[in-house]
Amino acid sequence: MIYLDNGATTFPKPRAVVGAVCNTLMRFGANPGRSGHRLSIRASEILFRCREQAAEFFGLDKPENVIFTQNCTTALNTVIHGLLKKGDHVVISSLEHNAVLRPVEALKDEGISYTVAEVVEGDDEKTISNFRSALRENTALVVCTHASNVFGVKLPAERIAALCRIYNIPFCLDAAQSAGIVPISLQNSCIDYLCAPGHKGLYGPMGTGLLLINSDRIPESLIQGGTGSLSSDRRQPSILPDRYESGTPNLPGIAGLSEGIRFVRQNGAENLRARELRLISLLYEGLADISEVVLYTEPPKADSHVPVLSFNLKNRDSEEVAALLSENYDIAVRAGLHCAPLAHEHYGTEENGTVRVVASAFTNHSQIQACLSAINKISKKARK
Amino acid sequence: MIYLDNGATTFPKPRAVVGAVCNTLMRFGANPGRSGHRLSIRASEILFRCREQAAEFFGLDKPENVIFTQNCTTALNTVIHGLLKKGDHVVISSLEHNAVLRPVEALKDEGISYTVAEVVEGDDEKTISNFRSALRENTALVVCTHASNVFGVKLPAERIAALCRIYNIPFCLDAAQSAGIVPISLQNSCIDYLCAPGHKGLYGPMGTGLLLINSDRIPESLIQGGTGSLSSDRRQPSILPDRYESGTPNLPGIAGLSEGIRFVRQNGAENLRARELRLISLLYEGLADISEVVLYTEPPKADSHVPVLSFNLKNRDSEEVAALLSENYDIAVRAGLHCAPLAHEHYGTEENGTVRVVASAFTNHSQIQACLSAINKISKKARK
Repeated sequence: MIYLDNGATTFPKPRAVVGAVCNTLMRFGANPGRSGHRLSIRASEILFRCREQAAEFFGLDKPENVIFTQNCTTALNTVIHGLLKKGDHVVISSLEHNAVLRPVEALKDEGISYTVAEVVEGDDEKTISNFRSALRENTALVVCTHASNVFGVKLPAERIAALCRIYNIPFCLDAAQSAGIVPISLQNSCIDYLCAPGHKGLYGPMGTGLLLINSDRIPESLIQGGTGSLSSDRRQPSILPDRYESGTPNLPGIAGLSEGIRFVRQNGAENLRARELRLISLLYEGLADISEVVLYTEPPKADSHVPVLSFNLKNRDSEEVAALLSENYDIAVRAGLHCAPLAHEHYGTEENGTVRVVASAFTNHSQIQACLSAINKISKKARK
Repeated sequence: MIYLDNGATTFPKPRAVVGAVCNTLMRFGANPGRSGHRLSIRASEILFRCREQAAEFFGLDKPENVIFTQNCTTALNTVIHGLLKKGDHVVISSLEHNAVLRPVEALKDEGISYTVAEVVEGDDEKTISNFRSALRENTALVVCTHASNVFGVKLPAERIAALCRIYNIPFCLDAAQSAGIVPISLQNSCIDYLCAPGHKGLYGPMGTGLLLINSDRIPESLIQGGTGSLSSDRRQPSILPDRYESGTPNLPGIAGLSEGIRFVRQNGAENLRARELRLISLLYEGLADISEVVLYTEPPKADSHVPVLSFNLKNRDSEEVAALLSENYDIAVRAGLHCAPLAHEHYGTEENGTVRVVASAFTNHSQIQACLSAINKISKKARK
């Protein structure tokens, strides 16, 4: 199989990731932070090492502000539900995933309103101006994606964050498609909350996600429960990371995530992005030569795109094209709305969705060529 | 090492569990329910198979009402936060874990009150009468543990559930220490919501938990986001299990949980409990012969206890005893409050906590003998 569905989750994982998960499961499978025996202490060390890895990678000086979540969606919900109160207003972008759109939509029931700021591809000034115009007196949070999970278009996140800092508005970044690919430094930016999946560009296993808190504004916790700390207190502890980590964590998954981050650091996020972007550019160029293909974005570039590309074949359903790629060529891509209806409204693809190809560190030149060749053949069949 | 900390998480896991996690990670690591290609469909099948396993095991006729959560705490919070509204009242037991106590305590800020019903060990009539007395006009939920995670004392859960049904009050069971050990049938009981960890008596990996919904009263979801379904709808889908499963699930963990449940079904929960209870009874009897030992419960019996035992050495800190067991004998137990201050208040052990021993399917006679012998030696040193 040629796996090009890396926007859903990266596959395969680095060997060290698989090794760490299996090793932890077999040898260190005690509950961390609960007991004082050897195995439990070892388990706690595994968690702490991953916090350190993530903190160093994202330039956060407090490893304890690295919170483990089940996925990026849970991290985003923690910030959105945990910060906003009745009467507040929140700004999101026109390229948001349902992981941002659905929580803010749900909060309308609690008297919280939201505004969608239009992203203008290729014109960051206009995008920032749209964010500025969307701010109100009662704006209590700006949350946006770092890059569209459908079209790969990058937002000027650092500049939006700086704009928010001017007005003292917390800024939360959804790094679902950028973490591990686009260098992010919390030390050198005004990003207050960084939400990332563990299982995409960071190459950890599914079931892992991260929330990095780079602010003194501490959201309420979504859940409360046992933390192995301050157990006699009926109130949820306020200390980090305990405040957000009630119940047993995904220890094998986190052990794997640690190795995943190490893999990215060893290879360098910049290098990975450059390599993957070359492959996606190659695909873009090849697709541009097929007359039946519809492309939606400018040719991908490092400063404006991540290695995510959407296309369609004229008068063909995206699901049909993906099914043909899977059935006839064993090529795995994703079709449809990609849980991001806003982005499709933006590009006028809400009816039919798009076919999406996403590269990873394990994608190579011949896979992209095979994909191109398959799309070419499918498109020719359509013409008959 | 002799691992007797199975109340925190069972260790080791059955071989098939480790195999399923590693195999999934290596061979089927695509995101389920998002794409239509071969790997993603295979991933969806893994999830569905686990839902079927869990539904069959707990006597629920709708596999789609089996919700995957990160842990039992998240399942409990989903029910507690998702059902209760301002002005509501909730009843809990005097043996609750912080996974129940802390959420209801936090909800006081939202105008929700709670009452603690006293559990009377060995007198189920009295316990049920206490629950009945705690009910009020505005009681909107009764939630209690199936068995104390500290003292192993079982509550008459089915009878409390039936009491709730009479008054049309939803009943939620925290099966943290009973799932996989005490047979539970949702078909033949009045339990509306069953919350269980995947990684304890069901032998799945850490990072897995279950919420089984056996009621038409559907709690609000704690989080909202992409579900791979009805993506163009800005509102969270109401269909199950999608409503609660936003974002990427812990696929490798769930593959392991499936094998864990299969392991329990193959062995029989009743057989496992009987065997583990014999071991814990053996420990109880041995401890009762050591004059320095303080025991808190009646001798464990199948209808009134799970294989969980707490004790102390007179005038010794529980943490100290556990540390000596770990350092000098490489025996892993847990000491302290076990995230359950209410239960310690109930038994008068809130100052010092207890030393807790919990058996699993992999615990054997000689391990219990070695533990007894070690405790005996530690207690003798104390007398000098």
